[in-house]
Amino acid sequence: MNKILLVFLAVFICNVSMAQQALWGGQEITSPEINPDNSVTFRLIAPKAVKVQLTGDFLKTQKVETDFGTFETTLPVDMIEKDGVWEFTSEPLASELYSYSFTIDDFANVKDPNNAYVARDVSTLTNYFIIDGGKGDLYSVQDVPHGTVSKVWYNSPSLGMERRMTVYTPAGYEESKTKYPVLYLLHGMGGDEEAWIATGRTAQILDNLIAQGKAEPMIVVMPNGNAKHQAAPGEAAEGMIKPYMSGSMDGTIETAFPDVVDFVESHYRTIKKKSGRAIAGLSMGGFHSLHISKQYPDMFNYVGLFSAAVLPNEGIESEIYANMDEKLAIQFSKNPALYWIGIGKTDFLYQSISDYRKKLDENKYEYEYLETDGGHIWRNWRIYLSEFAPELFK
Amino acid sequence: MNKILLVFLAVFICNVSMAQQALWGGQEITSPEINPDNSVTFRLIAPKAVKVQLTGDFLKTQKVETDFGTFETTLPVDMIEKDGVWEFTSEPLASELYSYSFTIDDFANVKDPNNAYVARDVSTLTNYFIIDGGKGDLYSVQDVPHGTVSKVWYNSPSLGMERRMTVYTPAGYEESKTKYPVLYLLHGMGGDEEAWIATGRTAQILDNLIAQGKAEPMIVVMPNGNAKHQAAPGEAAEGMIKPYMSGSMDGTIETAFPDVVDFVESHYRTIKKKSGRAIAGLSMGGFHSLHISKQYPDMFNYVGLFSAAVLPNEGIESEIYANMDEKLAIQFSKNPALYWIGIGKTDFLYQSISDYRKKLDENKYEYEYLETDGGHIWRNWRIYLSEFAPELFK
Repeated sequence: MNKILLVFLAVFICNVSMAQQALWGGQEITSPEINPDNSVTFRLIAPKAVKVQLTGDFLKTQKVETDFGTFETTLPVDMIEKDGVWEFTSEPLASELYSYSFTIDDFANVKDPNNAYVARDVSTLTNYFIIDGGKGDLYSVQDVPHGTVSKVWYNSPSLGMERRMTVYTPAGYEESKTKYPVLYLLHGMGGDEEAWIATGRTAQILDNLIAQGKAEPMIVVMPNGNAKHQAAPGEAAEGMIKPYMSGSMDGTIETAFPDVVDFVESHYRTIKKKSGRAIAGLSMGGFHSLHISKQYPDMFNYVGLFSAAVLPNEGIESEIYANMDEKLAIQFSKNPALYWIGIGKTDFLYQSISDYRKKLDENKYEYEYLETDGGHIWRNWRIYLSEFAPELFK
Repeated sequence: MNKILLVFLAVFICNVSMAQQALWGGQEITSPEINPDNSVTFRLIAPKAVKVQLTGDFLKTQKVETDFGTFETTLPVDMIEKDGVWEFTSEPLASELYSYSFTIDDFANVKDPNNAYVARDVSTLTNYFIIDGGKGDLYSVQDVPHGTVSKVWYNSPSLGMERRMTVYTPAGYEESKTKYPVLYLLHGMGGDEEAWIATGRTAQILDNLIAQGKAEPMIVVMPNGNAKHQAAPGEAAEGMIKPYMSGSMDGTIETAFPDVVDFVESHYRTIKKKSGRAIAGLSMGGFHSLHISKQYPDMFNYVGLFSAAVLPNEGIESEIYANMDEKLAIQFSKNPALYWIGIGKTDFLYQSISDYRKKLDENKYEYEYLETDGGHIWRNWRIYLSEFAPELFK
């Protein structure tokens, strides 16, 4: 190390003095360490702790009974201490993106000081890592041409506010004169316009699928699906609010959706017809996709429902949800190129999706269906995007 | 709360089971809480902890002696426990953006589970908050037109690689046909193309200054100043590496800089002449700005050196650093519209900047100079950007 670097390092440590112990106090260990057999070793230096546990979505699960049904949750494991370093090594893991945190003496959700990678889900930041060699390769940055990711403000006359969206334009967009198709990709309750690009790994998935020739180059538009917010927490004038579980399932987002399409089609080189538009979403975003696509049956040729809610709450009054059967009949009479449904076997919405599929079957409405392991989780939504995107705009 | 929301909430908690205790275990407190007098109360629930401390850049500082000089560092304060909740209330604070973390039983750099806002500096994530009512207003998102922030890949023939930059285009850019001036804004050692937009609050500062009529609408380009990396950690094919203190002070970044300008001027509507170009940077980025602007004396009409390093390490062989006096003479003979220097009184580079100013004074090279309290810290760099940007392109 040269002298200037050392001085910078010293200054950095002194100024960011909260980093002092992390850098100088012995946290110069590797965690997580992905071993050759794809087991993963987690380490934490906490000499004064009595008990340290690891929680992660790669650990064994247990079933939990609640008023709303039975859910799976992961079982924390105890870490073993030696010379102040707590350690745990997992089983060999399949290629995936995984999340984890530590619990030190019952203080939960401690971030790994040796892992700078976190994603936010509602108000919780969680460390993550990727095991390569399979699905995880799609979620990793590879040495392929990269698209541009932009945070863009647009005007929504229907909602009477400026709002923020994330836009992915594929590699080559800026250099070409081509018109591109657009996938509108919607988040779930508690999410916002950053969810799909961060935890959803949309840019990586699209970059990789396009580079492999498996997906057509397309623009992906990720708007904000909470009608009362302009933008993700901290990104609007309402300030650095504590993120909370919010969402819009009262028809407002569906009613205002043409504002999003109008903005995109007047600001990007797009194919401005049904064959150039797809809409998909997870959970609440799947609900939005279902109702938007049937409300505007000439707008979207491709529809993706990822672990989608189907019906609004009782008592919700909106023209959007009225006459559902008639609107579906019109939508399917126009032969959408793809109507795609994905759900996890243990998803709490599984029964509701089964009922919906029964309705589609009875009416001989064609759709594709993918059933995966697991529940209402991001692992499934990344898989669904990876399966859905290659079927678009062919 | 309606039933669907409750179900989503239950599912969310079960799936992200590491969040379980944070949401259900009593962390439903407010922290940080900004009180009416701008004192700030920090709270943490950790019933089993023996000692909890708070570290933050708003606390009293002490001087630390090192081999490289005397530095300031903040003194942690003890938090007081009552019923398992640890609490500390600061003095009333001036309007600013502040950072902090907790130390639980000597385990340092614990993030506040009630604050979802973190910024990364090298490998360390730190919580932050903003006190409004003064400078902090410039760093906050206000109800003003917002620019677009994009993460863009470009080709650098000089470095032989695709590289990533952050680009801010001001509100109205997409709708107008106007050509815009460009500020190239460079990060310091340990930073990357995300530093200025995250910790530097560039988008907020520019949005607000432009909305107030204090700065001209301009494009701000934030490239990556580490020649051996394509992008910020986790954003390139080298993978999710542990971020480390790196930098380039060997002439490579300066030599390759025209690649950045070429890309920007061929992809954005820019004023492609000296009067439409500014360059500024912090620390290593100030060093780059100094040497790039004198190497290409017809390129930049505005130069900002924020806590800049001046001279390369001894033994560094690069044409960029040769004949410095002659190159400066040429640069200043062409009368740059602004040569701006800012430094903190306790910055470890203060003496070096004093020596450099003496050289400029002796040669009657005109420059503006701002001396602030404090050292080599982001607080100063946000101030310098806020002072520098309004002087550009008038």
